[in-house]
Amino acid sequence: MASEFELIAKHFTRPSRPLHHTELGVGDDGALVRPAANCELVISTDLLVEGTHFFSEAEPESLGWKTLAVNLSDMAAMGAVPRWVTLGCVLCNEFNSVPSSGHFRPVGLPVSTAPTDKFAHSTDGGWLAAFARGFFACADRYGVDLIGGDTTRGPAGATTFSVTIFGEVPRGQALLRSGAQIGDHIWVSGYPGRAALGLAHLQGRTVLQGCHLDECLAALHRPIPRLELGLALRGIASSAIDVSDGLLADLGHILDAANVSAHLRIPDLPDAGLARDAYLAGGDDYELLFTAAPTRADEILACAEQLKLPLRDIGTVLAATGDKVKVFDRQGFDITPARRGFDHFE
Amino acid sequence: MASEFELIAKHFTRPSRPLHHTELGVGDDGALVRPAANCELVISTDLLVEGTHFFSEAEPESLGWKTLAVNLSDMAAMGAVPRWVTLGCVLCNEFNSVPSSGHFRPVGLPVSTAPTDKFAHSTDGGWLAAFARGFFACADRYGVDLIGGDTTRGPAGATTFSVTIFGEVPRGQALLRSGAQIGDHIWVSGYPGRAALGLAHLQGRTVLQGCHLDECLAALHRPIPRLELGLALRGIASSAIDVSDGLLADLGHILDAANVSAHLRIPDLPDAGLARDAYLAGGDDYELLFTAAPTRADEILACAEQLKLPLRDIGTVLAATGDKVKVFDRQGFDITPARRGFDHFE
Repeated sequence: MASEFELIAKHFTRPSRPLHHTELGVGDDGALVRPAANCELVISTDLLVEGTHFFSEAEPESLGWKTLAVNLSDMAAMGAVPRWVTLGCVLCNEFNSVPSSGHFRPVGLPVSTAPTDKFAHSTDGGWLAAFARGFFACADRYGVDLIGGDTTRGPAGATTFSVTIFGEVPRGQALLRSGAQIGDHIWVSGYPGRAALGLAHLQGRTVLQGCHLDECLAALHRPIPRLELGLALRGIASSAIDVSDGLLADLGHILDAANVSAHLRIPDLPDAGLARDAYLAGGDDYELLFTAAPTRADEILACAEQLKLPLRDIGTVLAATGDKVKVFDRQGFDITPARRGFDHFE
Repeated sequence: MASEFELIAKHFTRPSRPLHHTELGVGDDGALVRPAANCELVISTDLLVEGTHFFSEAEPESLGWKTLAVNLSDMAAMGAVPRWVTLGCVLCNEFNSVPSSGHFRPVGLPVSTAPTDKFAHSTDGGWLAAFARGFFACADRYGVDLIGGDTTRGPAGATTFSVTIFGEVPRGQALLRSGAQIGDHIWVSGYPGRAALGLAHLQGRTVLQGCHLDECLAALHRPIPRLELGLALRGIASSAIDVSDGLLADLGHILDAANVSAHLRIPDLPDAGLARDAYLAGGDDYELLFTAAPTRADEILACAEQLKLPLRDIGTVLAATGDKVKVFDRQGFDITPARRGFDHFE
C-alpha cells in the first residue's frame, strides 16, 4: 500500500505550475503572498463535513471541484478576485498510513477521504487522484493558488475539509450584504432551485429527465461560482450575497442587514409544488442575489448579455414592515410560504 | 437548553472591542482586511482534532488558548506580526441544537466541543465559555482579530478546530526554513522537552514535582508563542522553524531545506533517559530553533537578555554527510539516538 507521502507526491505535487501571486507556497511554517497595492483582502472560511455537507458516497472528482467552488462563490458575492486557498483535511482512521502526530504540510493536501469498507480503491490512490483532479480543475479554471494546508486523521465517517480562501478587491469596492436601499430592485442570477431539484431526484422525491436532469445534477455537483458577475457588479449593486441557504433565507440576510422588507414578483417562478419550493428555499445553488437602484437596470441587463447569464429582476426593497418578505404570483395573489423554507431539503 | 445562537451571542460576541486591522469582521460572505503597504502576508493553517491533538477531557480554557497559540507560533517562526485569525469548528452530534445545514458565520465560533455524556455542562455553556475565555485571552495578549469562521456538526468524538492565521512581515524579511549556511551555529530558545515531560507525567510514565511539574504542565497546556523573538531575529537568523514535532525532527526540516548536516553539542542536555529523549524528540514545545552566522552570537545573546528568554547555541551546520545529525555529549561521546525520536511520545 502506498504511504501517505507517496500518495501526496503522486497526486498533489505540481512541480511546474507557476504560482503567479505567491512568493512562497507550501513547505515552510507559512506561505508568503504579496497582495496588490491599494487592495483590500477578502477572507472566507468554510467547513465541509461528511454526512452533513456531502455524502460518504460522493463522487470524488465532483467533490473536489465543489469543495473549492463553494468558497469561490463567497469571493464572487464580495466582488473579489480569488487568489489563494488553503485546504485542511481530516481523514478517517481506517486509512492506516495516516500518522497520528498531526501537523505537517509538505503539500498540504488530503490523503484519503473514504472509509475503506466502502472505497477499497482509496488506498491505491484512485479516490484521492480523482478528488485532486476536481480540486485543481477548479483552481486552474479560476486562477487560484493552493498555498498550504494540513492533513490529520480522525474517526471513521468524519472526513472533513476545511477551506480558507483569500481574494483581492480595490479599496472600498467590495460588495457587502448591508447596502440595500428602499426602492432598490432585487435581482438573481441563473436558475435558483436546480441544485435542490437534483438532490430531490437523487433521493427519489421527484423524477427529472433529459436535459433538465443533467442541468440540475450539474448545479448540485459542479456549481459555477459567479465570479465574473461579481466583478461586473462592483459599483452597480448596492448589496450582494450568494444563495447557499436558499433564496428567501439569503434575501433575509440582506434585508436584516439594512432593516428593510421586500416584495417579490418572480417572472419565472414555477407554479407550485417542489419546483417552486426549490426555487424559493433550495440551498446549494451559488447564484448571486443582489440589489441595485432602478436606474441601473440597463447596465445589469447588459451584464447579463455579455456574460450570457440570465439576470432577473424579482422584486423591490421596501421600508421595514411586519412581514419581512412577501411573494406574489403573476396574478398578484399572495403566495408567501408559511416558512422561509427548507421543509423539502433537510 | 440554550440554543446555538444564544450560546454564541453569550460567549463569543464582543460588542465593544475595536478591530484595529480589520475593515469588516464577521457577518458577511467574507471579512475585509487592509494589509500594510510594503508588507508580505504570511498565512498558515492547522487542524486540531479530538483524540489526535487533544484529549476529550482537555480543560477547555487551556484548549482555547493552545488552539490559537500553536498557530501564533508559526507566525513567530516566520518573523511575522500576527494580525487576523479564522476559526472553523466541527461539533459533535449529541449537541442537539447545532443545525445540520452547515454554513453560517454570525460570529464564527464554536458552540460545544464535548460529548454530553462526559460534559453535561457543555449544554449550559460552561465548557464553551471557558474555551472562549482561553481563545480570546490569547488573541488579546497578542493583538489578533478574530475575523470569521464556520461552525457545523459532525459525529461524536470528532470535535475539530480549524485555524487559519495571517500575519504581516516587511517584504523580503520573512524568516524561512531554507537559509542555513555551512558554518552557521544552531540555536534554540527556552527549555525544549518540557511539554513532553508534562504529558509523560499525566500519562503516569514519570513523576514530576513542584515548580518543575508546574513549568512542564504550563508548557504543555499554555504554550507561549515566541513572537517577540521572531521579530528580533529578522535580519539575524539565516533560517528558523518552531519546534512542534521535536527538536531533531524539526532541525531535520532545516537541514533538508539547505541540504546540509549538523553536529549538536547541547550544553543543558539531560544526561540520559526520558528527560533527554524529551529534549531531543518531544514535540509540542513551540520554542524557536534557528541558525545564524557565528558573527551574530553577541546580538543573539543580547536578544536573550532583553527578552529574558534563554537562547542556547547547541551546534553547528556542516556540509552534507551521510549522517544528517550527530549528537555529542559534554565529553565528546557520540550519543546520537538510533531514531530521531518519538518512542516515548506516541
